[in-house]
Amino acid sequence: MLSEFGLIARYFQQPGLANAGPWSPQLGIGDDCAVMSVPEGYQLVVSMDTLVADVHFPAVASPELIGYRALAVTVSDLAAMGAEPAWFTLGLTLPEANSDWLAGFAEGLQTLAQKVGISLIGGDTTRGPLTITLQVHGLVKKEKWLSRQCAKPGDDIWVTGTLGDAAAWLPYLQQGVEEKPTDENLRTLWNRYYFPTPRVVEAQKAVALGCRCAIDISDGLLADLGHILTMSQVGAQLDFSSLPASQALQQLLPELEKQQQIMLTGGDNYELCFTAPPHLAGDITHSLSPLCPVSRIGQIIETPGVFTTSGQPVSISQQGYQHFN
Amino acid sequence: MLSEFGLIARYFQQPGLANAGPWSPQLGIGDDCAVMSVPEGYQLVVSMDTLVADVHFPAVASPELIGYRALAVTVSDLAAMGAEPAWFTLGLTLPEANSDWLAGFAEGLQTLAQKVGISLIGGDTTRGPLTITLQVHGLVKKEKWLSRQCAKPGDDIWVTGTLGDAAAWLPYLQQGVEEKPTDENLRTLWNRYYFPTPRVVEAQKAVALGCRCAIDISDGLLADLGHILTMSQVGAQLDFSSLPASQALQQLLPELEKQQQIMLTGGDNYELCFTAPPHLAGDITHSLSPLCPVSRIGQIIETPGVFTTSGQPVSISQQGYQHFN
Repeated sequence: MLSEFGLIARYFQQPGLANAGPWSPQLGIGDDCAVMSVPEGYQLVVSMDTLVADVHFPAVASPELIGYRALAVTVSDLAAMGAEPAWFTLGLTLPEANSDWLAGFAEGLQTLAQKVGISLIGGDTTRGPLTITLQVHGLVKKEKWLSRQCAKPGDDIWVTGTLGDAAAWLPYLQQGVEEKPTDENLRTLWNRYYFPTPRVVEAQKAVALGCRCAIDISDGLLADLGHILTMSQVGAQLDFSSLPASQALQQLLPELEKQQQIMLTGGDNYELCFTAPPHLAGDITHSLSPLCPVSRIGQIIETPGVFTTSGQPVSISQQGYQHFN
Repeated sequence: MLSEFGLIARYFQQPGLANAGPWSPQLGIGDDCAVMSVPEGYQLVVSMDTLVADVHFPAVASPELIGYRALAVTVSDLAAMGAEPAWFTLGLTLPEANSDWLAGFAEGLQTLAQKVGISLIGGDTTRGPLTITLQVHGLVKKEKWLSRQCAKPGDDIWVTGTLGDAAAWLPYLQQGVEEKPTDENLRTLWNRYYFPTPRVVEAQKAVALGCRCAIDISDGLLADLGHILTMSQVGAQLDFSSLPASQALQQLLPELEKQQQIMLTGGDNYELCFTAPPHLAGDITHSLSPLCPVSRIGQIIETPGVFTTSGQPVSISQQGYQHFN
């Protein structure tokens, strides 16, 4: 018999998870609600993600990987706002209360929670098909946040890290490969799928420099940049030769066209795509490149749509997010 | 094909649902996060509930009822803190995108949202077995909130409304009765199951009078009062003759012992149980009884455990929450 209260206490009330960040709640797990103070001069930002077993992650994956990745992809939405992670809640639906699974899952959550400084403050555990809902709460200084609506013609388009790596792991996932590969290039893809790095600090630096427009790349560059373009009522010109490919991707997909296609449409990568006026280019490179690669991949234009540098409409299928099954 | 963005826009971005209360978000549905301001002098309280089809509600029930009840039971946690409802997020997992179902579900949510003044600010829709996760966000004045930890020996124990009605509907639910009954007493039970009233205003009045300890009765009086007793490290003496039974319950369960058993252990009722120093009794009756019945059902004592007025330990099975299946 699954005992809700027992479960929560044993696996999720550990100090390392319930007090993983600097923003302790005044009242955490165990009452009807958690109680928090939002410091003066700050605003609250929140995002919720639901991850369904065998749709958004393989149910057979190790619980540590599932926990780490679930929290990482949700925190990535805080990064896309330039927010500082503060608190999260967990709605966990499980077919059965398996101690090993729960311990591993909590460990995976905790590793990411401590990395970004986010504390578990509450949630709900229920019996049913394996589904994970996470809500993350972050803090931004008043009016100092990133949205999808603020791209302006003339802005440069930037991305952090490299593109397409996690998506390039999907075929192996579909073949049922679960173990960490021994091949170094494959291991890079595996790592990029299971251990996405929410670009929290990078985004905060971008906000501090004056950037106001960003999205995290969950569904693929074209799909997610597309949200920025629609909401900002602008278009984009992309320089395909500037798309950042990892060494692993270059070696595993030597054909340039395939490389570009996966960088443009592959999801699950959780890098940041942001725009900035050209005069910030030097500051961005100087400030962000010590943290992670940053690449200027194009420009915002007035004409709606996405075009190559030679003015051709981008005809690659814009189908973005590919569930792994 | 379930299109996440289309669904959200069509059913959940309606003004009546996205702006149902006085606390509009600065940025609502449609970006990576919602952005809200917590007014100075207030604190944020949050709670998350997950409801699984055929565990927490009958999957075949009408979507309006499912939506209304799901939000009502979650908002009830805000009531238990004495909080003012402000915002909610929705994680909805659905086997298929059925327009009729979604329209009905959104309507049910909206009816309750407008009743308590809570705005939908974001969430996630995914494909999978029907599961509803709701997170509610409320506002409390600094340090003016109710918790489970503050019961003191000598306090009176109060409950709002009547007890056991929703639980008395469960046998009919288990028999597959879905339609609104024609019998008046049965209709009362049906109404109490599907349309619980989160005691939001009553709780705020209790806070204003100086009350500091409450819980909402989701799992049954003994189970939930038990949480207060454990967390406050006290016990309780209950006057069974003061337990508030509705006329419907009295007529459908004329045997006193059965009535009392279901009032003590029946869940799904979402009334408030709170404690208060005896000198507040007059104010509580005066202030709350115009809104709903309030009953003083016992007293907090130092000795741990629950006892009758004659000092007998309460031996009725403390099994509280009964899932309907």
